[in-house]
Amino acid sequence: MTEICPIEWLGDRVRMLDQTRLPDEVCFIETADPERIAAAIRTLAIRGAPAIGIAAGFALALQALHSRPANVEQVLEELEACAQMLRATRPTAVNLFWAIDRVLAAARNAQPDPNEISAALIAEALAIQREDLAACRRIGDLGAALLPDGCRVLTHCNTGGLATAGHGTALGVIVSAHREGKGISVRVNETRPLLQGSRLTAWELNQHGIPYAIICDSAAAHFMHQAMVDVVIVGADRIAANGDTANKVGTYSLAVLAKEHAVPFYVAAPCSTIDLALPTGKQIPIEERDPQEVLCFRGRPVAPEGSMAANPAFDVTPARFITAIITERGIARPPLGQSLKQICARHPGPANTME
Amino acid sequence: MTEICPIEWLGDRVRMLDQTRLPDEVCFIETADPERIAAAIRTLAIRGAPAIGIAAGFALALQALHSRPANVEQVLEELEACAQMLRATRPTAVNLFWAIDRVLAAARNAQPDPNEISAALIAEALAIQREDLAACRRIGDLGAALLPDGCRVLTHCNTGGLATAGHGTALGVIVSAHREGKGISVRVNETRPLLQGSRLTAWELNQHGIPYAIICDSAAAHFMHQAMVDVVIVGADRIAANGDTANKVGTYSLAVLAKEHAVPFYVAAPCSTIDLALPTGKQIPIEERDPQEVLCFRGRPVAPEGSMAANPAFDVTPARFITAIITERGIARPPLGQSLKQICARHPGPANTME
Repeated sequence: MTEICPIEWLGDRVRMLDQTRLPDEVCFIETADPERIAAAIRTLAIRGAPAIGIAAGFALALQALHSRPANVEQVLEELEACAQMLRATRPTAVNLFWAIDRVLAAARNAQPDPNEISAALIAEALAIQREDLAACRRIGDLGAALLPDGCRVLTHCNTGGLATAGHGTALGVIVSAHREGKGISVRVNETRPLLQGSRLTAWELNQHGIPYAIICDSAAAHFMHQAMVDVVIVGADRIAANGDTANKVGTYSLAVLAKEHAVPFYVAAPCSTIDLALPTGKQIPIEERDPQEVLCFRGRPVAPEGSMAANPAFDVTPARFITAIITERGIARPPLGQSLKQICARHPGPANTME
Repeated sequence: MTEICPIEWLGDRVRMLDQTRLPDEVCFIETADPERIAAAIRTLAIRGAPAIGIAAGFALALQALHSRPANVEQVLEELEACAQMLRATRPTAVNLFWAIDRVLAAARNAQPDPNEISAALIAEALAIQREDLAACRRIGDLGAALLPDGCRVLTHCNTGGLATAGHGTALGVIVSAHREGKGISVRVNETRPLLQGSRLTAWELNQHGIPYAIICDSAAAHFMHQAMVDVVIVGADRIAANGDTANKVGTYSLAVLAKEHAVPFYVAAPCSTIDLALPTGKQIPIEERDPQEVLCFRGRPVAPEGSMAANPAFDVTPARFITAIITERGIARPPLGQSLKQICARHPGPANTME
């Protein structure tokens, strides 16, 4: 059973699969430097909401492990500075902030001894990774039950092992259903501008032997109109308390189209993606990335010199377009605000389905 | 006043702007060979529904001009063979078939003398071109009246001078409104897979000095949700009798999104794009192009080797999503079937607005 893992803890450093080089090359970044990890997050060498949370956790652990501070106060100060750097990498996915806060809390709760602190941080970062893998597998099981036999799924961006500790969220559901022998086939939105669909999701589907066809993002409507899409399933970067969901730009378009064609629209994400502090999606910050991502293709310009472009990396899908949100603690159905609140209050043990 | 012209008649040959090389290079294909023109249509060196009709007209004129037939029957046979080759280039845009039929009719109606036939064909092809330019200018005037001052327009693909005899259809409306001093700004869908928005529409907007920003096709929904789009205007490749409209893939998606956000959705096209012989859009053949257009970018693969892709070049927007169709003989409003029938029955003189 193939499990794709984007980041590995090697005791005193991490090894990250450089996702900017896929599918051309499988190559790795090994580093003990938190700044190098921050750069990898910024440039999308490591990406996907859960995966960047995990990477940030390891960055803090490495900060504590390799510093030679005079005292505990200094360790905590250095960790706070490191956390600030990590928080500034990408604004939208809440898992980043959640993981940073969790690891910092572990530092503050550790014995006041620099060595104890680094051990506590490593343990916490590893726990975040382990829990995410377990969450993804559980999301896969719960979500697979929603996909009928022979289901033709449409998905967007990459939400597989590469985007998480392993297995994946939306793509994890597809992989789980495939392993259950459901005869799943996938239409993959190529996902402009950075082609995470063509480059990463197709690469993962190849590993799993799941049949797929890549399509231009704008062709999704055509295939829905032709009744060639049974289900849309996507991941999430931040889910507000009312269920409004930020995800890769293009997701909202799919949600509107799914509703128009009476196709179920599912979001799959671990509870670490839910941000109960934000009442609605209006408060979710949307990252605006470099216009050159739209204007160039791998360094080669595609538009006239001096062209302007707008490049929001995410959009927000209002809760009313979402059929259900699949989490590791159960499936939230409308009214999503109420269901999500109940799910988040649950003990993070074996999950039940909330209908 | 800049007028962009994709094809020019040079007396014994044509000169076509090679649109596959834009915006990197402005270079031309000069040829007297109908097969070379067919190849240019096939490879999209010349594209856009009205422009390929015009190109086909000139191809037939060149066939007649340069053949040395034994008798009139042989001229007509050769023309029919040439027409067959041209008809096989691209199936969706009806202007191609309309122009071929019109030029063949001119051949049959000409004096039974090979020289007379070629003169008649040249005259007819030039008439098609001249009439298309006049139609586009009239569409521009009629359509501009629909755009409020300061209007922020979203458009898809390329529907400018490059796609027509000159001036353009949907982009022609934008240019006309700009020249009227309306303070128009444009969001340009890049239009995957072949990036006619980034490559061609941005290039034309630069010539006209109209402010624009290129966006990924999938980001259109986000900008509509943010109330940053006042109007969507697109061209057409074939309009069925009931108003269902085939256009570049991605158009249908925009139509659904425009309806969801209460944004007017306009189609601009000359009457030569209306196919009253087809009752609905279901009968419009949709061209499926080479999957490599999705899987590669200018020869460089973007997906893993052996990936599958689906690449419909067009989609069909049902009439119920269309606010109005702007033609040179007037503006068709719902019920579109009835309005289009009346418009097509009109004398192709100065047009009135049909509300």
